[in-house]
Amino acid sequence: MTDTIPITYDREPTQYRHWSLAVEGAVATLTLRVDENGGLRPGYQLKRNSYDLGVDIELNDALNRLRFEHPQVRAVIVTSALDRMFCAGANIYMLARSSHAAKVNFCRFTNETRNFMEDASRRSGLAFIAACNGTAAGGGYELALACDEIWLVDDRSSTVSLPEVPLLGVLPGTGGLTRLTDKRRVRRDLADVFCTDPDGARGRRACEWGLVDRTVPPQRFEAAVKARAEELAARPGLPAGDPVPLMPLDRRLEVDGYRYPYVRVWIDDARRLAEIVVSGPSKPVTVERTAGWWPLAAARALEDAVLMLRTNHEQIGAWVLRTEGDPEALLAVDALLAGGMETDQFLRETVAWWRRALARLDVTSRSLIALIEPGSCFAGPLMELALAADRSFMFQPLDEPETAPRVALGALNRAGLEMVNGRTRLDCRFSGIVPNFPSGTLGPGEALAAGLVTFAPDELDWEDEVRLALEERAALSPDALTGMEASLRFGGAETLATKIFGRLSAWQNWIFSRPNAVGEDGALKRFGSGARPGFDWGRV
Amino acid sequence: MTDTIPITYDREPTQYRHWSLAVEGAVATLTLRVDENGGLRPGYQLKRNSYDLGVDIELNDALNRLRFEHPQVRAVIVTSALDRMFCAGANIYMLARSSHAAKVNFCRFTNETRNFMEDASRRSGLAFIAACNGTAAGGGYELALACDEIWLVDDRSSTVSLPEVPLLGVLPGTGGLTRLTDKRRVRRDLADVFCTDPDGARGRRACEWGLVDRTVPPQRFEAAVKARAEELAARPGLPAGDPVPLMPLDRRLEVDGYRYPYVRVWIDDARRLAEIVVSGPSKPVTVERTAGWWPLAAARALEDAVLMLRTNHEQIGAWVLRTEGDPEALLAVDALLAGGMETDQFLRETVAWWRRALARLDVTSRSLIALIEPGSCFAGPLMELALAADRSFMFQPLDEPETAPRVALGALNRAGLEMVNGRTRLDCRFSGIVPNFPSGTLGPGEALAAGLVTFAPDELDWEDEVRLALEERAALSPDALTGMEASLRFGGAETLATKIFGRLSAWQNWIFSRPNAVGEDGALKRFGSGARPGFDWGRV
Repeated sequence: MTDTIPITYDREPTQYRHWSLAVEGAVATLTLRVDENGGLRPGYQLKRNSYDLGVDIELNDALNRLRFEHPQVRAVIVTSALDRMFCAGANIYMLARSSHAAKVNFCRFTNETRNFMEDASRRSGLAFIAACNGTAAGGGYELALACDEIWLVDDRSSTVSLPEVPLLGVLPGTGGLTRLTDKRRVRRDLADVFCTDPDGARGRRACEWGLVDRTVPPQRFEAAVKARAEELAARPGLPAGDPVPLMPLDRRLEVDGYRYPYVRVWIDDARRLAEIVVSGPSKPVTVERTAGWWPLAAARALEDAVLMLRTNHEQIGAWVLRTEGDPEALLAVDALLAGGMETDQFLRETVAWWRRALARLDVTSRSLIALIEPGSCFAGPLMELALAADRSFMFQPLDEPETAPRVALGALNRAGLEMVNGRTRLDCRFSGIVPNFPSGTLGPGEALAAGLVTFAPDELDWEDEVRLALEERAALSPDALTGMEASLRFGGAETLATKIFGRLSAWQNWIFSRPNAVGEDGALKRFGSGARPGFDWGRV
Repeated sequence: MTDTIPITYDREPTQYRHWSLAVEGAVATLTLRVDENGGLRPGYQLKRNSYDLGVDIELNDALNRLRFEHPQVRAVIVTSALDRMFCAGANIYMLARSSHAAKVNFCRFTNETRNFMEDASRRSGLAFIAACNGTAAGGGYELALACDEIWLVDDRSSTVSLPEVPLLGVLPGTGGLTRLTDKRRVRRDLADVFCTDPDGARGRRACEWGLVDRTVPPQRFEAAVKARAEELAARPGLPAGDPVPLMPLDRRLEVDGYRYPYVRVWIDDARRLAEIVVSGPSKPVTVERTAGWWPLAAARALEDAVLMLRTNHEQIGAWVLRTEGDPEALLAVDALLAGGMETDQFLRETVAWWRRALARLDVTSRSLIALIEPGSCFAGPLMELALAADRSFMFQPLDEPETAPRVALGALNRAGLEMVNGRTRLDCRFSGIVPNFPSGTLGPGEALAAGLVTFAPDELDWEDEVRLALEERAALSPDALTGMEASLRFGGAETLATKIFGRLSAWQNWIFSRPNAVGEDGALKRFGSGARPGFDWGRV
């Protein structure tokens, strides 16, 4: 993936090549029929419903469509259009020819999609059923593991399996190992047997070991799954709002970055820096149930900017986060969203999009520096940018305190925008002991004293201090920064999701850099060649 | 470390080259004065109290001596004999010339030592004070972080620092990053600043940021630390028992392994297998307050075997765990230890040694297979071997059920031998929902039904099934197995210690395999050469 054509993340259902989305009442069916010749990059065929990043980008888009364009949906069946094959997992030939960075980026995005399915299940009441009408192997089974229930057809041949270790010399790294033990409570020795057996399990053993929830003979499979979906869809929940069409994302490529409504991105290749500037709401605050409404449009643009930057600009090691607008106006938006998210589905889903966009920032392997300057708008959801940053600088004017920037916390900073560890960024920042902050907006001195910003240089020092910090950051080892940031951003208790992004992904990245996997004789390279891999047997 | 002279882990205080241990009443002082020419391997000098594995092996030994030979000690001062230098951390030249496996093994052992200090603090009431009478840099500060309190001399020059990221392009991977946020609750943005600043912090900033607990001027430093140690030593606790000398470990090197009282190790290079056989107690059970008493001698031998095998036999990928003896006799030992560990210091420390030895097994990057055969003795503490194993096989005779092996759970399986995540292996195995087991010893059928063993092949299948499992295991990618085992062994909630062994170590291992650290132009290789490292700036 060293091509120069940028990878984009916006899709339209009418143009899906791999998924189809059908809605009937409160039940949606997402059907996978991967276009073998529809790979995102040339050079590999996506046989047997195997996937690459492009397949997952469509899935991610479909999940968003469900929330806004089909708000009545309460249960989602994930299934396949192929005979006896649910999904063969990530395409090995694609993986084998990808750079280390591309592999890691691919895994990160698929992990995010699967985590967001669980987020939708937990917080939006969407129930997912993996209807495995055929074999679910590797990443295919990992997709099923992200669903609330796994149903497997009992046709005496279809299996679930995680053959990564025995066949490829890598891990089931898209949550597989973690979800087996932590979500499905599969006994660790049985998980060990399962993960080293390339043939996997079917029928009774799959049920007994907790790998699937139900097996059903082929002739009754579809009807049984559907009945279960109807049952799940009938659970009590918020009343559905009206559909809100997600109009095409208005992203313009410019010579030095991207421009969206409310978000601009500048890329400075020479300094290996990007600037992301988010503009606050420009209109008075009332709920406008369209994709153009500021809270929805800004979250969507921010998320797209994060994805575009991290995929297409590997050399850009630090992102400067800036905002502009009126903090008071944004606090009113914050109050509106927080006040309505428990009762109004559209507001709930809008908050969820912010939560998702900000969560992507947390697992982005780039240094994040927030600059809080006069005219900035770090309040409520945009204050999360400063809290997500590795460090923040707030400008302190010498003489004219009325020109000082001000930051503000709103209700969303205290609930609604939690990180994937289930805790707010405030809670993580203060290790569970969040102090009482002065009410209203805070100037540089107050914000510094309250621990909400890292530094508050005065206007004489500002330029030098910020410049030095960015230069110093740009000179450090990118790998060491990646490991350090991944550790410091997730202090305290871990969850399934943080274990996947931390423990599991870190091990997988290590394996992805080892000759036993990616060397010329490595298992990943040798896969499908008929030749056995050559291993260095030393244990590390 | 490709030398063929094996690295050993047993030491005698009279032969320490780097540490001295002085005891005065209830306060011990461990003083570091590293012998520059006392490196474990030739080729580097241990200047400025920098350390290699050999230095840490002595520290580990000293901690054991404290528990048994100086049972009256309640507080430990860790300090340095050098002027203005507490400890400069791991020796960089040693790291730069070590193989990947040697680096990882070194970090694992130092992590264990630091975790065991915290275990001693939490469960044995030993308070540790890091008396930093000079600069604590990198691993030196990480050693201090493992103590309960950090006191820093305020001489206007001594600092604490974690310069790994800016100077070496690696992580403060011996717990540094994790303990900053999770133990000392340093704010993550301040931690970010601290960990990217090669100069670190001193005096007021170090206190304000929570990096140290107290600073004291040089002239009052020693007395103030001592007074604090006396205060900590005076806290209520168990009455001290009599000293028990830790007689030299009786390990005999044999042509194909090691032999200790109660533990034998066979190494099969051709099959890349080792067998560890632990023998149960041979005498009637009464407490014998000597290092030769079965519970203490067996724990010590087992721990030494684990350390010897994992350090000196990298190519041996799977360990077969076997036992022999009388399960009923062992259950009596289990009851004796469990019944006395709350009130009898010697028994408490003996249990702690088992806990430590077994914890080393959990983080050992080798496949662990337990074989439960006729004549075996998997009960109480030795049953933990089967529970620590990645999988277990229990022999099922066809006709003569009285010759069937039997396993048994004792009180120690339910409390006392917790993994580093604070949970018992039973609790982890059953994801927090431990079933009620039939009382007494269990035969193969019962043990299988209870979920205590993975498989119970009958005597017709036994040989083939075990042979196949071992052969299959030996054919898999060592790296993939390492990542898989590290994940499956630690399902569920994470703690500081598991985050260090999982998240942090995995990131560090990844960085240790990256050219930006270990390539010819990498930061670790270039350190001290005067030349700047050359980085690939791509972010992964």
